[in-house]
Amino acid sequence: MTITRRGMMGGAVAAGLMASPLAAAVRFDRRKPGFVLTPDGGGVVPLFVDAADISGVRRAAADLAADIGRVTGTAARIIGDRAALPDRMIVVGTIGHSPLIDRMIATGKLDVTGVTGKWEAFVVQTIANPLPGVREALVIAGSDRRGAIYGAYDLSRMIGVSPWYWWADVPVVRQAHLRVAHGRYVQGSPAVKYRGIFLNDEAPCLSGWTTEKFGGMNAKFYGRLFELLLRLRANYLWPAMWNNAFAIDDPANAPMAEDYGIVMGTSHHEPMMRAHKEWTDNRAEYGNGAWNYATNKPAVRKFFGEGITRNRANEVVVTIGMRGDGDVALESTGSLQSDVKLLESIIADQRAIIAQGMAKPAEQVPQVWVLFTEVYKYYDAGLKLPDDVTLMFADDNVGNLRRLPTPAERGRKGGFGIYFHMDMHGGPFAYQWINSNPLPKIWEQMNLANQYGANEIWIANVGDLKPLELPIEFFLAMAWNPADVGKDKIAGWTRDWAERQFGAAHADEIAYLAARYGKYNALRKPEQIRPDTFSLVNYREAERMCAAWDDLVRRADAVNAALRADQRDAFYQLVLYPVRACANLTSMYVAAGRNALFAEQARASTAVEANEVRRRFRYDRELSDTYNHVMAGGKWNHMMDQTHIGYFDWYPPEADIMPPVSEVDSADVTGFGVAVDGNRRSWPGYYLPPELPTLDSITRMPTYFEVFPRGADVPLAVTVTADKPWLIIREGKAFGVSPRDRRYWIDVDWAKAPVGRSEASVTVKGEQTVRVKVTAIRATPAQERDARGAYGGLAGPFAVPVTGFSRAVPVGGVRWEAIPDFGRVGAAMSIFPVDAASHADPKAAPRLEYLVYLAEAGTYHVDLVTGPTLQVLPGRNLSVAMWLDAGPAEIATVFTPADAASQDFLGDKHAANTKDNGRTMRFTVKADRPGRHVLTIGMIDPTMVIQTLAVSRDAPVASYFGPPAIVARAGPNAADGPWQVVRA
Amino acid sequence: MTITRRGMMGGAVAAGLMASPLAAAVRFDRRKPGFVLTPDGGGVVPLFVDAADISGVRRAAADLAADIGRVTGTAARIIGDRAALPDRMIVVGTIGHSPLIDRMIATGKLDVTGVTGKWEAFVVQTIANPLPGVREALVIAGSDRRGAIYGAYDLSRMIGVSPWYWWADVPVVRQAHLRVAHGRYVQGSPAVKYRGIFLNDEAPCLSGWTTEKFGGMNAKFYGRLFELLLRLRANYLWPAMWNNAFAIDDPANAPMAEDYGIVMGTSHHEPMMRAHKEWTDNRAEYGNGAWNYATNKPAVRKFFGEGITRNRANEVVVTIGMRGDGDVALESTGSLQSDVKLLESIIADQRAIIAQGMAKPAEQVPQVWVLFTEVYKYYDAGLKLPDDVTLMFADDNVGNLRRLPTPAERGRKGGFGIYFHMDMHGGPFAYQWINSNPLPKIWEQMNLANQYGANEIWIANVGDLKPLELPIEFFLAMAWNPADVGKDKIAGWTRDWAERQFGAAHADEIAYLAARYGKYNALRKPEQIRPDTFSLVNYREAERMCAAWDDLVRRADAVNAALRADQRDAFYQLVLYPVRACANLTSMYVAAGRNALFAEQARASTAVEANEVRRRFRYDRELSDTYNHVMAGGKWNHMMDQTHIGYFDWYPPEADIMPPVSEVDSADVTGFGVAVDGNRRSWPGYYLPPELPTLDSITRMPTYFEVFPRGADVPLAVTVTADKPWLIIREGKAFGVSPRDRRYWIDVDWAKAPVGRSEASVTVKGEQTVRVKVTAIRATPAQERDARGAYGGLAGPFAVPVTGFSRAVPVGGVRWEAIPDFGRVGAAMSIFPVDAASHADPKAAPRLEYLVYLAEAGTYHVDLVTGPTLQVLPGRNLSVAMWLDAGPAEIATVFTPADAASQDFLGDKHAANTKDNGRTMRFTVKADRPGRHVLTIGMIDPTMVIQTLAVSRDAPVASYFGPPAIVARAGPNAADGPWQVVRA
Repeated sequence: MTITRRGMMGGAVAAGLMASPLAAAVRFDRRKPGFVLTPDGGGVVPLFVDAADISGVRRAAADLAADIGRVTGTAARIIGDRAALPDRMIVVGTIGHSPLIDRMIATGKLDVTGVTGKWEAFVVQTIANPLPGVREALVIAGSDRRGAIYGAYDLSRMIGVSPWYWWADVPVVRQAHLRVAHGRYVQGSPAVKYRGIFLNDEAPCLSGWTTEKFGGMNAKFYGRLFELLLRLRANYLWPAMWNNAFAIDDPANAPMAEDYGIVMGTSHHEPMMRAHKEWTDNRAEYGNGAWNYATNKPAVRKFFGEGITRNRANEVVVTIGMRGDGDVALESTGSLQSDVKLLESIIADQRAIIAQGMAKPAEQVPQVWVLFTEVYKYYDAGLKLPDDVTLMFADDNVGNLRRLPTPAERGRKGGFGIYFHMDMHGGPFAYQWINSNPLPKIWEQMNLANQYGANEIWIANVGDLKPLELPIEFFLAMAWNPADVGKDKIAGWTRDWAERQFGAAHADEIAYLAARYGKYNALRKPEQIRPDTFSLVNYREAERMCAAWDDLVRRADAVNAALRADQRDAFYQLVLYPVRACANLTSMYVAAGRNALFAEQARASTAVEANEVRRRFRYDRELSDTYNHVMAGGKWNHMMDQTHIGYFDWYPPEADIMPPVSEVDSADVTGFGVAVDGNRRSWPGYYLPPELPTLDSITRMPTYFEVFPRGADVPLAVTVTADKPWLIIREGKAFGVSPRDRRYWIDVDWAKAPVGRSEASVTVKGEQTVRVKVTAIRATPAQERDARGAYGGLAGPFAVPVTGFSRAVPVGGVRWEAIPDFGRVGAAMSIFPVDAASHADPKAAPRLEYLVYLAEAGTYHVDLVTGPTLQVLPGRNLSVAMWLDAGPAEIATVFTPADAASQDFLGDKHAANTKDNGRTMRFTVKADRPGRHVLTIGMIDPTMVIQTLAVSRDAPVASYFGPPAIVARAGPNAADGPWQVVRA
Repeated sequence: MTITRRGMMGGAVAAGLMASPLAAAVRFDRRKPGFVLTPDGGGVVPLFVDAADISGVRRAAADLAADIGRVTGTAARIIGDRAALPDRMIVVGTIGHSPLIDRMIATGKLDVTGVTGKWEAFVVQTIANPLPGVREALVIAGSDRRGAIYGAYDLSRMIGVSPWYWWADVPVVRQAHLRVAHGRYVQGSPAVKYRGIFLNDEAPCLSGWTTEKFGGMNAKFYGRLFELLLRLRANYLWPAMWNNAFAIDDPANAPMAEDYGIVMGTSHHEPMMRAHKEWTDNRAEYGNGAWNYATNKPAVRKFFGEGITRNRANEVVVTIGMRGDGDVALESTGSLQSDVKLLESIIADQRAIIAQGMAKPAEQVPQVWVLFTEVYKYYDAGLKLPDDVTLMFADDNVGNLRRLPTPAERGRKGGFGIYFHMDMHGGPFAYQWINSNPLPKIWEQMNLANQYGANEIWIANVGDLKPLELPIEFFLAMAWNPADVGKDKIAGWTRDWAERQFGAAHADEIAYLAARYGKYNALRKPEQIRPDTFSLVNYREAERMCAAWDDLVRRADAVNAALRADQRDAFYQLVLYPVRACANLTSMYVAAGRNALFAEQARASTAVEANEVRRRFRYDRELSDTYNHVMAGGKWNHMMDQTHIGYFDWYPPEADIMPPVSEVDSADVTGFGVAVDGNRRSWPGYYLPPELPTLDSITRMPTYFEVFPRGADVPLAVTVTADKPWLIIREGKAFGVSPRDRRYWIDVDWAKAPVGRSEASVTVKGEQTVRVKVTAIRATPAQERDARGAYGGLAGPFAVPVTGFSRAVPVGGVRWEAIPDFGRVGAAMSIFPVDAASHADPKAAPRLEYLVYLAEAGTYHVDLVTGPTLQVLPGRNLSVAMWLDAGPAEIATVFTPADAASQDFLGDKHAANTKDNGRTMRFTVKADRPGRHVLTIGMIDPTMVIQTLAVSRDAPVASYFGPPAIVARAGPNAADGPWQVVRA
């Protein structure tokens, strides 16, 4: 990923966030022409909003006035009286609700072309002499109330008030001069009609925090939230419902939502605008108390009716359908068909209740039916849904869409929605602690939603809201206009976001850090990391992972030191805490892995690693204590209360559990031990002699062994000597905490080594003697020539970066394209357009060709790691093909319709894939001779995202990522992440 | 198992050890008549052994003379001169080698009927006036040299010198009076011609010990060993060969073996009387140095020839055939058929070398070919073996025979042998630390060997020899005469063994302890125990296992306190150390399991359990230090050097590794937690409410939950109350170290409970409130009547003891019989005779009927746990059948010929079975109605040993043993082991 710093105009950002029409118009330079908000005489121009305008618009206008004050030091005075207008002013209003605005339209001063009548659109226009007695106005006119509100907040954002100014303590940069370039700026309608979030899994963090700071999830809290949503151009909310009932906890909540202009809903399993808690708290008042439409219908209908009636005056999207008692499956009536019938009758009754309660036809009230977990089966079984109801597809709880509209389905009036997870308490596993949602992954999946026409409603489960600030904003920006955040614009968007929060000086670096920690957290979510996740012995995998994190920590610390003091609270919550805590967590697990490995090897340093685990476990607590108690003066206390260490089941542990650590009884061991690259065993001890991975002159990767004290943890007294002059030995520190554990790098001076295969040994001599076998293969000149430009070498497994193809063959406008920064690599490849038709014959389909060099003839394993995408269209498989040279194409199919039908919620296989955030598809190819070959990947179905290719002659060794791609050292940043190693 | 104390005559034992013909003849009472060894005037009678007799006989006679001294305080004077005979004497000699004995035979004084010409037989006879001038003699005459030697040692044993007097420091009880009842006592030939042991896997213990005490594995060491073997009536030895070479390490070794009368061999993979180390140390002198008959034949032949030539004068059994370089498989020549051809040519060449080297026809030199691990395949592929060579079948390395002679094979002249393991370094896993070989298991398998005619050679791999004293002696006793140690005599044999070592006073208890610790160690070998082996939450399994061990420790400590000081070294090594160390080891792993479980439950006592693990880990070291350094003044230093904690692969760890322990960060948890019987979860926390296993009035087992502090480890402040008057709550200590963790036993006062199903709850109230759901079912009078005498109840899984059948049906003399004390139960059942023919129709086969009471109609799982026996005859399966009432018989087949052929060394399945020392065969039966049923087990194949039956409606829960059998409390010893629970 390359984030380049782009030239900026003034303080404004050319694109980014929800791309603002004002992006290039706002200036902080008094020499620039434009509408002057800060007259030279001091103060700011007043802001007019009609007293008769919609209340939410007046409220947002007041926020704009205050925001101007945050920037300039002087809040704008608000004028609501049309009879006393100043000669220069800002005007905010809703077309049709602001007589002043309507007059300017009527007089032709304000041009609302492309705005009037649209959903949530607005125009910003500087107008000279807009009204009698007024010299100049900056008019913000909305097509409807949210259009006006978004317009007002757009100006706020552009003058430097982050939507997160309160929610993430982003400081506002003071400006002496504010101008808006003369002109007309139009913002059209959003791509997705309803864009929202779901506060969920809100204990212990959000609940604890709201209790301490607001006394509960009341209007004081929701007011803060609604403001944030509107500043982010969201319009839809599923409120918190874990032991919370939005409409009951504070009777002011629901009216206030309407007042702000927020469209309320209820979660996927809470129909008819009622929290399930309202039922569980009061079930005694409802018939037999059973949440069962078959046995307690009149009471349940009454419950439904109350939910609708009380929302008669509110803009809502009504969740319909019915699941079981709580967030569980519906109790079956005996058969799937009878359950479908029951659900159809429930929905019919609900629509009747809606029509009566809302006093208008049901089809005029937005409704949504959510296919969550098991609910899919009723739809698949043929449930008839009224055409105006939005059909919402839930993902797999881990951000992978399960279903998209087929071409045949797409015509429905109610359209389609997506319920997406950035946080989960439930299967396949909970992740509630930290942001593990890299933006390219969100993009890749939500782009499918958009391209396949699921864009009536997008809602994301965001847990406690914090610390998901970044992905929330991205998700909403993409919902507004997917074109603004195309796959090649994500890095730029992130950079702009960073600049918005922290200024331009560190924006590149902060964007890198924010993108990277999310990416690393998605390699495997922190909750799913174990001491043995990353291999300690193969490919230096754990070491490279820790080094990648350490690099982030160093860079984040450097930024932190360089930032102004008033920026550090925001930086801690948005970047520094997650970077430090996640780096520490990974290193803690890896130390626990070393403790276990070192115990097996009887290293004296086993105890040192146990202490390291304990130290890091305590440091994790320090970091969250800082978040809760020190950062922003304790403003966010409880927001980092979520346990996150020691998962033993799908749900979080009651208290963090330190990875267990061992100790060895060293009384009977003395001297030193040796452990070699690629092997958990140690010597003296294991009965077969130690042997290093084979070195070769094409790969040119060194190998190593480690020597360590056994028994007493005292410095080693060993000599290490090679028996061949062409062997190079370099001593360094072993991977671990103890400086007494040493690593001996073994490399070959290829100029001196004989051509062909040579054997050598390195002898470690001390209290005992251990001889380590080395094999080196120097290529012949012919081999060198043959291998040039190809991946592979003369020994060992190797990776091929999927972007390293020698040829990409498009077919009929369908092609493999890169998705930068996706998954576990620098860029993944996928089929575009994403809704292209499947190909039966991969050899005639879009394909990618890779040059590989294979050391010998024979059979090779090729592991193709893909994204964990699912088959999203019924009846279509998810397949991809591979072949070597002109060999037969092997087609691997991860999901067939039978798979989906036979597996409960996609089964264990997919649960493993979601944990890995990837899927390994194993192919076998046969090379008829050693040397250079062409390995081809051919498309079968779209939505397949390929990440890496690992080629090996033997069965692949234990490793989370497989062999890394090798890059030659080109500079300090040559290795882009743990998926690469640098060749010295 | 019941060990009854039997009446004893004098100090002698009526049977036991190798049953001695002198057992009832030796008296320590001067009032009893007989040949007087201790004349009233003091001293002892002299011992005559002809100076011309075989040297081994003279040496053993001298041992007898010294043994008499050990008992009486005066060693017998040795006379070798026929010309100066005393008037009363002991005579020891070999028929045909002792002129005096031959003269007594010639004169009719000595009756050698049934002895002369036999293999290793002897007669002991008191003879008045046996020779001119001699008034009385006690004559011990052997049919051959070992006959005479065994005769001499028989008297030694009978007067109270244990074969282990030196090797286990068994003190000799002083006796003032020694007499042998007048008469003639004949000992016939042994059942098994060659009976021996294999010192193997002899580092670090035996190697370290011999180095320190003898300066190596030299003649000083082997002399001690040969004497022990002869005292145990063994005759055959495979010497230590881990970095040892018997014939080279001390040139005196081989001649001394011949001198003692020990038949030497070499291990299964060391052909032609040569240690493999002789090759590896000197391979440079042999051709191209490759241990490869295909490429280095002349050199290998030379090596073979030297081994034979140097043994020309010695009694040996020559190992023939050839494996790979070290204890590994032969390098293949390309195909199995060509390998067979190669092996056949090797064997032919070896026989030519033997004939030449020994200067007699090869068929006159005993030879053995050992089918070890992969060697079976050559035989199975049709390798032709000369008829005089003994074909030795190796077990599976864990004491389960893999193969026995078929009726067609049995005629071969060389017969068959067995290579049996009591110790292993290799697959499926190493066990080198302690005795885990219960005698009933050895009996069960070696009885198959004997009954199927594999009794030419029996050899046991005994590791370092110590601490396998008991099973070694049992194995050799059984080899001598299997009839002496029939399955119903094992307990008595053990008791006699205990009396022999420690006297009658504590013999019952010591025999119980010795049998029990071996039995418990075989439930799962200590090396294979893990923190989660025994369930902490189901059936109180870990708790019952620990309680069983604790009981042994208490009893062993009591015996130790009661013993004389001079007996304590022997007791420590034979009983107290293994009992204490193995109990500690199990409790340590269980504490580690609690640490992990308690962390999940956020118990404050998590830290207490971590400390307990550390304490027990250190205690293990203390115990072995005592064995090495304190016991017997350090005589056995290094014998307890074997690491045994923290196995992570098949081989032992380099140093003991403490089970890892965790800690919890309790800063955010307070108050108390609740955990319930049968569940790892805890409350408050888990989202579904806590619920106890259902109680029922037929099973009448109470259940429980535990309450514990979370956060600070302070005493609980809770009240526990029931909402029904018939619920009984009893408070006690939880299973764990912390006294603050409490257990609340929940039971029902059945007289007060309503008939049928009732629900209730128990409320725990403190800082929070947790309500635990209880369900109780009281049987109707009709149910009570129906269930009487049957196993089972109204709820939950249950076990049926296999000995609890209501009817056993024999067919044609074939029947199910009990093997007392086998495996994981009080007694197992198997088919006798063990070589009965298979039955195709189980309903017409020998069967066992069990009455079971099933709470409801429907499908039940029945887990039949069998011994891990293998199918021992090619072409025969290993199957058993089960059915309910008149339902169809379900036949389960564990091994088919295809299994054996397709799996490398029996595969992972059998490896798991050997770890479990059992095999679970899952059956499904269908009950057409609730109530009383007959469950029947029908024979298909012999050698199947059944141990337990577990019946459950739901899928069985995680548990090592399954549900325990329930016994009503009948007294302090009512529960016989962890396979039972006592109903209060």
